[in-house]
Amino acid sequence: METEPRENDPLAYDIDPQARAISLEEASEIADEVRGLIETGQEHSAWELMRRLHPADIGSIVAGLPRNSRDAMVRVMSPETLTGVLRHMNPLEAGRVGTRIGANMLSFVFAQVHPQQALTTLRHIPFLPIYAVRAVLPRRAEEGYEENVLTRDPDTAGRLMVEDLPAVRFDGDASAVKERLKALDQIRDDLTHLYVVDEHHVVLGQISMVDLALADLDTPVAEITEPIVATVDVDTPVDECARLRRHYNLTQLPVLDGEKLIGVVLTDALLGAVVEHDTRQMQQVASVAGETVDGPISDSIRTRLPWLTVNLGTTFLAAATVALFESTLAQVVVLAAFLPVVAGQGGIGGTQTLTLIVRAIALGELVGVEAHRLLIREAMLGILHGLWLGALVAVIAVIWKQNFGLGMVLGLAMFGNMIIAGTIGAAVPLFLRRIGQDPAVASAVVVTTVTDVVGFVLFLGIATASISLIA
Amino acid sequence: METEPRENDPLAYDIDPQARAISLEEASEIADEVRGLIETGQEHSAWELMRRLHPADIGSIVAGLPRNSRDAMVRVMSPETLTGVLRHMNPLEAGRVGTRIGANMLSFVFAQVHPQQALTTLRHIPFLPIYAVRAVLPRRAEEGYEENVLTRDPDTAGRLMVEDLPAVRFDGDASAVKERLKALDQIRDDLTHLYVVDEHHVVLGQISMVDLALADLDTPVAEITEPIVATVDVDTPVDECARLRRHYNLTQLPVLDGEKLIGVVLTDALLGAVVEHDTRQMQQVASVAGETVDGPISDSIRTRLPWLTVNLGTTFLAAATVALFESTLAQVVVLAAFLPVVAGQGGIGGTQTLTLIVRAIALGELVGVEAHRLLIREAMLGILHGLWLGALVAVIAVIWKQNFGLGMVLGLAMFGNMIIAGTIGAAVPLFLRRIGQDPAVASAVVVTTVTDVVGFVLFLGIATASISLIA
Repeated sequence: METEPRENDPLAYDIDPQARAISLEEASEIADEVRGLIETGQEHSAWELMRRLHPADIGSIVAGLPRNSRDAMVRVMSPETLTGVLRHMNPLEAGRVGTRIGANMLSFVFAQVHPQQALTTLRHIPFLPIYAVRAVLPRRAEEGYEENVLTRDPDTAGRLMVEDLPAVRFDGDASAVKERLKALDQIRDDLTHLYVVDEHHVVLGQISMVDLALADLDTPVAEITEPIVATVDVDTPVDECARLRRHYNLTQLPVLDGEKLIGVVLTDALLGAVVEHDTRQMQQVASVAGETVDGPISDSIRTRLPWLTVNLGTTFLAAATVALFESTLAQVVVLAAFLPVVAGQGGIGGTQTLTLIVRAIALGELVGVEAHRLLIREAMLGILHGLWLGALVAVIAVIWKQNFGLGMVLGLAMFGNMIIAGTIGAAVPLFLRRIGQDPAVASAVVVTTVTDVVGFVLFLGIATASISLIA
Repeated sequence: METEPRENDPLAYDIDPQARAISLEEASEIADEVRGLIETGQEHSAWELMRRLHPADIGSIVAGLPRNSRDAMVRVMSPETLTGVLRHMNPLEAGRVGTRIGANMLSFVFAQVHPQQALTTLRHIPFLPIYAVRAVLPRRAEEGYEENVLTRDPDTAGRLMVEDLPAVRFDGDASAVKERLKALDQIRDDLTHLYVVDEHHVVLGQISMVDLALADLDTPVAEITEPIVATVDVDTPVDECARLRRHYNLTQLPVLDGEKLIGVVLTDALLGAVVEHDTRQMQQVASVAGETVDGPISDSIRTRLPWLTVNLGTTFLAAATVALFESTLAQVVVLAAFLPVVAGQGGIGGTQTLTLIVRAIALGELVGVEAHRLLIREAMLGILHGLWLGALVAVIAVIWKQNFGLGMVLGLAMFGNMIIAGTIGAAVPLFLRRIGQDPAVASAVVVTTVTDVVGFVLFLGIATASISLIA
């Protein structure tokens, strides 16, 4: 029961893919020690501290180091070891570590290991940005690897899959299946199913590892074959793969070209797709899609500044709305103080609804749910929230400013804006879904613009109409 | 290769857990047809339309129906069928379907099926709210099922796990392992690993299904045993289970009491934990944690209204800030129009940073990354964004209002507020993490309050100081 490197794994050099898990706190402590050692020039002691950890932990500690220390650390680890770490991490985090290490260094490292090892590792990291893959690949061009899965569209099943074919013939028996499984040494440990094909590689069904384990050697393949719930092709979007994994509980997806098996998306890549999808969605609602928190600063500017600029345009819409009521504001300047109250509450209320609907759409929770039912529901909630918040805000304003008219105007505006906030927060993502767009992109900007503008029109409009009560 | 019900599965009544996957569009179309049929009293035709679908699709279509139609549909499906659908859905969605159907109806349905079937199904749905579990359970009290995993704290591994023990003795051989696997008919199809234990049920290692499939019948257990990367106990938080699943690529987690195996968290429950964690996090950033979009309206009010009320308090902080500068506003009323510009940009900028940091913390991406490096990075980004947005907003204001002083004041305020927004957007979640709190909860409210208040102080403060230039 000792940990021994698997015989068939050419990558198990100096690392232990079955090292014990550690907590985030322990990882942080070791990372601090490692950083301290490197800063005093003791890279080798730092590596001694890390090398018995799980590759997943080695990877995230290396990724978290400042650039200079990281480069020093990478030079201390042998190319084989670094490749092995990447190979045994989960694909999503390996992609991040590869990005942090940088395409140049990665290309340098991969050039020094066995070509097969480099390729296997690259195939294991579908989440590595395509520019990094291209930087690493040319050195392998002479080996004819360029025109393959590694250069496919990064958002498709074609990029997630490996080209190994876990396929067995329908007319064999369990012992033949086991022979085939033995030969699949690169992906064997990650398989939950094998695929049954005919002589033309047309897929007929699948065999689960459990059924295979229970089968006798002479059990015919047909007897343990079961139907396949879902297949994808190379162009199937990663998000659809994530949905199939979640909704149908599929641990593995066969990739077909027509009816022929050409690859398989493994468990780890599928989980990566689910997590990546969730991350992107959260970020899109906040208008920061696709950024990482520790990438190059120029990337961050490229992602965020366009949205900030668009938002500047929309806040000027709000400004123009306020400007329409300049004469009212000149008469009752205290109204200006309540502008952020109206806008802030509407924005929060709208974003609450928006976030819920975007998430529910992403999880497929709104199948068959009629849009008007959701709109009515959110409008109802807006009415109830508006009643409470409107009354509360009116009371506070009356007590603070001793102005009954002001309280009434503010309360009414708040009531109206909460209804609009709920309705628009639901309407925008539902509309985007209807026209086939991603409901998360740009929704938040539109919703807060509408709640700002409507809030100001209501508040300053009612104030203008009842100016005699509040002036 | 026909789809046949498994002999050992008492739940495979009228449904086909290996029916083909359909797209979301197809599911929506069928759902519309089903709703139409039920509304004209043709429940049985509606069921005919659905019954050949995958249980995951049956479940989500039923969940999406309006209440009356849903109740009608549930009555048409036999209790066994409905139980089977829930049993074969993914646990997270099954929890949602169960919640939608309601504790009363669920309890009624579960009372009519075989006790073992009811229990197995309930154990398969750890994401069913505890009140629903309690409503369903009493009818089984006489069978002694009450004091078990079903009533454990919903946010722990104890609730996620099943109590079946996929354990084998260390001194046996592969044929004994296979015998044990055969006997585990309730969870067998979901297993990726079996656990090796000694005579006291102390866990020594694990056997992967792949290694078992490849082993000869007389292969000693020790020869195919490998170390276990991570174990949990009944009190381990669900979020930590999700982290272990993601970070270490573990498809299954053994639950230990001391060193003894007492249960296992299966693949589907682990994926559910990951997705649930991501959902809650997105929702917490938007202050709507734990809500579902189609649950009872009273639940929605309970989740959202407290946050809206807290936010009202914070917007009054912003209002009080503006009120401090009433005399300045009275002199240059056009300043009021630009309040939403300053506040809006700061809020978006701060939320962008916040969302990135919260997500990076959740994915364990900040291990070993020093907080001050992140703060400096975001402050730098704030300076760069501020330079661009400040210049832009100044130019627009000058062109619009023909007031050079106003443009200068607005530009400076924008520049300052973007720096604050970036810094505070990073500081708040990093501080919450430091003191051991969830960085997602309440962060957004704090960040937007700070950007509002600071933005107004900068804008109106600079305007007051340079009033002669703009009045």
